[in-house]
Amino acid sequence: MKSVKQMLIDIDGSVYLRGEALVIVDRRSLPGEILEFMAYTCEDVVQAIQDMIVQGAGDIAITAGYGLYLKSVQLEKEPSTSSGYKQKSIMDASRMLSATRPTGYHMSSLLDKITGSLDYDSPLPGQILECINRSVALQRSRSRLTGKYAADLLEDGDVILTHCFPGPGLLYMLLDAIKLGKVVKVISCETRPYLQGARLTAWSVSEIGVPVTLICDNMAAYCMKTGMVSRIFTAADRIATDGSVANKVGTLQLAITAGYFGIPLYVLGYGGPHRQTACEADIPIEMRNPAEVLYFRGERVTGVKVNGMYPAFDVTPPELIKGIVTDRGIFTPRDINSYHTTGKSNKKKTWI
Amino acid sequence: MKSVKQMLIDIDGSVYLRGEALVIVDRRSLPGEILEFMAYTCEDVVQAIQDMIVQGAGDIAITAGYGLYLKSVQLEKEPSTSSGYKQKSIMDASRMLSATRPTGYHMSSLLDKITGSLDYDSPLPGQILECINRSVALQRSRSRLTGKYAADLLEDGDVILTHCFPGPGLLYMLLDAIKLGKVVKVISCETRPYLQGARLTAWSVSEIGVPVTLICDNMAAYCMKTGMVSRIFTAADRIATDGSVANKVGTLQLAITAGYFGIPLYVLGYGGPHRQTACEADIPIEMRNPAEVLYFRGERVTGVKVNGMYPAFDVTPPELIKGIVTDRGIFTPRDINSYHTTGKSNKKKTWI
Repeated sequence: MKSVKQMLIDIDGSVYLRGEALVIVDRRSLPGEILEFMAYTCEDVVQAIQDMIVQGAGDIAITAGYGLYLKSVQLEKEPSTSSGYKQKSIMDASRMLSATRPTGYHMSSLLDKITGSLDYDSPLPGQILECINRSVALQRSRSRLTGKYAADLLEDGDVILTHCFPGPGLLYMLLDAIKLGKVVKVISCETRPYLQGARLTAWSVSEIGVPVTLICDNMAAYCMKTGMVSRIFTAADRIATDGSVANKVGTLQLAITAGYFGIPLYVLGYGGPHRQTACEADIPIEMRNPAEVLYFRGERVTGVKVNGMYPAFDVTPPELIKGIVTDRGIFTPRDINSYHTTGKSNKKKTWI
Repeated sequence: MKSVKQMLIDIDGSVYLRGEALVIVDRRSLPGEILEFMAYTCEDVVQAIQDMIVQGAGDIAITAGYGLYLKSVQLEKEPSTSSGYKQKSIMDASRMLSATRPTGYHMSSLLDKITGSLDYDSPLPGQILECINRSVALQRSRSRLTGKYAADLLEDGDVILTHCFPGPGLLYMLLDAIKLGKVVKVISCETRPYLQGARLTAWSVSEIGVPVTLICDNMAAYCMKTGMVSRIFTAADRIATDGSVANKVGTLQLAITAGYFGIPLYVLGYGGPHRQTACEADIPIEMRNPAEVLYFRGERVTGVKVNGMYPAFDVTPPELIKGIVTDRGIFTPRDINSYHTTGKSNKKKTWI
């Protein structure tokens, strides 16, 4: 049995190879049950990403990388495949994976990195695994540094409101705050319809020993108005170079409400902005199956003539964000594009 | 089988006497199942209100009135009770009922009206039933007039966003708009944790033939930002004389978000402000059982060490409200206290 820390802080604790299969701990059944989804083919991985068996930008990227790995293993077993055929197969698989979740860019960035770096005349699986392992190490390093810089922002007695699962950076932030002797608490929005806030964030925060209170998404303003919240931290599925931030739907109204009450909102931005995304208009918003709103665990919650809508993300404008915390320090949204020129001496370490 | 219209527009369609029992259509199982909760005693009615078997300020008030009726029937069966004993028993029952849901004032107003008007030397059941019937008629009249004035605000092509179940006034508004030839649509927030928006509002709106789309509460800002919403309508559990409005939790962040995007928010205010509530400080916010957030239909959605919190209401300040629609016309929040001097010639018709 993996520990919570292994599952939610260490990417390779919940997505890893076992023999010929990729094991993915099913995020949808946590924390009640720890179920393993076994992917044997790239198509299985597509399904796992599409169906939210794996969640979180970094984890999705690594899982997609393994999708290419499984495809490459399959190609190795086919007799006398040409390098051209292999390249086309890998590129097709990459496109199929990328199409599953269009809003975040971490997955497509990693897939592009892998497909662009392969020597198709040599065996592919080893090359792809090496890329994945480097990405896992980079993500871990980024999470640790992001958490460390974020912990510096916290004050003793802070209550942090958060939404969805902001990734390992949130947990590193809390662990670092504890080491610094700061007493902090967390309020977690449940994050409908998949309840990532309830199932992943509140659970993992409680498991590392930080007091946490779960609320429904519509209770955040009440908490802010009554003085319960000192800071808000969310993650980012994509940061534009103008400082706009796409994140789990609901982030925008949290940010607007925080602005109204004068509560600072910070974004855990890990590896900074996406160079090819200049502004909100460049960010595609994934519209998921409305059934995910109309049904709860198989039971319809409304009348049969009612339509549903499920935009999975929204975009928060830079003026509502106090700071973006990255592995290279904290930036204002308007200044986030300087991320790529900051710490240039470390540049070779950055890989995605 | 009652029709949807009978159940959700006509109060006496879902709360009514059958022999010695009060029948309450269980709002929690709608629309999937139409279950009848049978209350035989005042204590059963307390449970029905406490457990959200009945929901909505007007319906709760009428149901509580029936609680006193059941108590009075029981008192009639006891041998040789004095009028003093009867009065004490009725007052005790009234206090027990009022304590179940402290934020709204409709229930306590009706209970005070009943207990204050009774002749304890005469048989009580008939007197109480007469009060209830007058209140039902008054509520129906208020809902119709509120809906009529609200329909005047709508323009052809409007999309109305709403939260929780704003009562029959919303349905009358939509029916009147249709009669006036206005094509309107509705977006309904699901309203966690009890999903009144999904189960009552979206369902009843769809059943009267108006297109309706269900969203999670955290998707409202996305809808507003992308231009999908032209107006917002909510109800009020209590309106203070300074124009502050207590309503289902989540209303405040909708109002803040609407203000940010310049979308007008109206309150269906039926019978106007509560004279004894001057401002927000006079409004007690009901804190319900946190288990209602931590569990969904009996299944825990988070870790065992996670706390929950469930404030059932929040208060929206007057500056975020465009207008309050009542049975006496539309008021600005700052002017709402003039409700009680408006249409004074009709005053004897107003009863709660």
